[in-house]
Amino acid sequence: MGATPPGGWTYARSGVDRTSVRTALRALLGEVRYRPPPSHGRAVEGPGHYAGLVRVGRETIAITTDTVGTKALLAEELGAWEEVGEDIVAVNVNDLAAVGARPCGLVDCLSVPSLSPAVFAALGRGIDRGLRAAGCGLLGGETAVVPDLVKSPDLGGTAIGFFPRGRRPVVGDRIRPGDLVIGVASSGLHANGFTLVRRLIERFGSDLARPRPGAALPFGRELLAPTRIYVRISEAMAGRPETHGLAHISGGGVRNLVRLNSRVAFILDGWPRPEGIFHWAMEAGEVAAEEMYQTFNMGIGFVLVVAPAHRSEILRRLARAGAPEARVVGHVARGKGVEVPAFGLRYEGYD
Amino acid sequence: MGATPPGGWTYARSGVDRTSVRTALRALLGEVRYRPPPSHGRAVEGPGHYAGLVRVGRETIAITTDTVGTKALLAEELGAWEEVGEDIVAVNVNDLAAVGARPCGLVDCLSVPSLSPAVFAALGRGIDRGLRAAGCGLLGGETAVVPDLVKSPDLGGTAIGFFPRGRRPVVGDRIRPGDLVIGVASSGLHANGFTLVRRLIERFGSDLARPRPGAALPFGRELLAPTRIYVRISEAMAGRPETHGLAHISGGGVRNLVRLNSRVAFILDGWPRPEGIFHWAMEAGEVAAEEMYQTFNMGIGFVLVVAPAHRSEILRRLARAGAPEARVVGHVARGKGVEVPAFGLRYEGYD
Repeated sequence: MGATPPGGWTYARSGVDRTSVRTALRALLGEVRYRPPPSHGRAVEGPGHYAGLVRVGRETIAITTDTVGTKALLAEELGAWEEVGEDIVAVNVNDLAAVGARPCGLVDCLSVPSLSPAVFAALGRGIDRGLRAAGCGLLGGETAVVPDLVKSPDLGGTAIGFFPRGRRPVVGDRIRPGDLVIGVASSGLHANGFTLVRRLIERFGSDLARPRPGAALPFGRELLAPTRIYVRISEAMAGRPETHGLAHISGGGVRNLVRLNSRVAFILDGWPRPEGIFHWAMEAGEVAAEEMYQTFNMGIGFVLVVAPAHRSEILRRLARAGAPEARVVGHVARGKGVEVPAFGLRYEGYD
Repeated sequence: MGATPPGGWTYARSGVDRTSVRTALRALLGEVRYRPPPSHGRAVEGPGHYAGLVRVGRETIAITTDTVGTKALLAEELGAWEEVGEDIVAVNVNDLAAVGARPCGLVDCLSVPSLSPAVFAALGRGIDRGLRAAGCGLLGGETAVVPDLVKSPDLGGTAIGFFPRGRRPVVGDRIRPGDLVIGVASSGLHANGFTLVRRLIERFGSDLARPRPGAALPFGRELLAPTRIYVRISEAMAGRPETHGLAHISGGGVRNLVRLNSRVAFILDGWPRPEGIFHWAMEAGEVAAEEMYQTFNMGIGFVLVVAPAHRSEILRRLARAGAPEARVVGHVARGKGVEVPAFGLRYEGYD
């Protein structure tokens, strides 16, 4: 790879251009005009939020689909597949958690260039671990052996969830100025930004078998750490009136908050400073802060937007649900977009 | 490519080995031991049938996931994407139709090496056409630009369906000797067997821009014809007591019938003789009949297994639902497996 491009490395220069994705997606969605009759289910929310919602008979079903993306290339390089197996579950159930739905089933969809029972067994162990953390069953799947189509395994899945009696979808419409933004820690990079990370690794020739200075795990294992699963966190708070919004901080970084409500401003004045792997990417990779915060989770993988009363009761409840580190990382104000004052960042929209 | 291998071309020799897929899949499923508590949904049917079924509150939801596979390579070669867009919907809703579920939502999952708004618009037009035929809404999707992972677009999706009040899943348990097997025509190859077809094209150097002898469409367009959607057929029959089984004849060909019920024999003594593209593959491609019938749909894309009474009423009902060509193509007998007497074929299991 050549020198650092002017302005530093960005996600677009690493091969993924959010604007192009948006343009292509608009071209596709512009052609999909059909809306089924109510007898075939009533769509509650169009594409755009974390999960699609459809009212079917007496239940509302949430559905979301996602892949592990290029993190699978790192798994392949390290010959370690359990972590990305777990990610197949995590990337999907966390999007269900972000609408307050309880997972009730996953299907996996694996497109692979070749078959190895050992790799599949490791993926299975990871999927099993993810399902346990999410309280979710495996309902089926598809395996395609397509060496003409894929160079490396494309690991995807789809999860469905529902709303237990009395719980309604959390879609962010009740968020208002004065609300608190509570952050729950991530377990590292999760499964986002790997196209950029891999470019950085190539460029800086990091040795994946040794820890970074100051890190405990070998660098490769640190990068590969499975995505934390936030289902228990969501379950603890989704049915409560003080919960106004939930967000999974995935691709798009802090911009994800705009998906919840575009008529308020999210001021992230308590977001943790970049540490660990995020600090490394900024320093060693010379990635601009603006790019970092719209690509990576920057230490917070799940966010709750809550009414300001009962703050300490909420934090106690989150601690009991497995997140003793949860804390207030910002607040909601009049305005729009997302601000990270520590770096003078301001984002208008989600993409 | 070299000469025809001894024994003719088979799917395994073209790069896809059903036994290896089974072995790898067993390795994966053997590790997935977790079963969620009933409060997270009750799985009605384990992985194996066409669709996973989960009881959620007061509804049963069916879910199925599939991709267009290497048919996308032909779309790329011809620069024609609408047909495979429609296939994304068809391959999934037809699996819902095979359990008698009414589609209520689809999510697409596209992994692409690059972005072209024109390609995405064409995919969108095809998806829209498929959704209209299925009475299904688009609930969301995922687009990943992953040039390091895929050589060509990997086009997948997941569909969910439900059972209108009073209708139960059709899972084949009521099939018994004496039942009739009714076949509904396919629209061509659908989206199965393309890895083999592409090898045949390469080997025999067929000109995709001209029709085969005796065919009307250019060869490429004939191969690319979108998968027929059988939702209306299923809707017309799924809720009726005489409907004992439904099958989507996809990858696995007539072996798909074994998925319905492994304790009876399906005698396909009225299945149509290989015509059109299937005749070409057998003759020009020197593909053995045994391989043909376990790889392609051989002219019948959807099958209904029904009680023998009311035969003509059933055929009239299917005609009104859009399948005037539907006819009896076999019957159920004591024994097990699937037989195609015209070619002396006998298959034991699904895979």
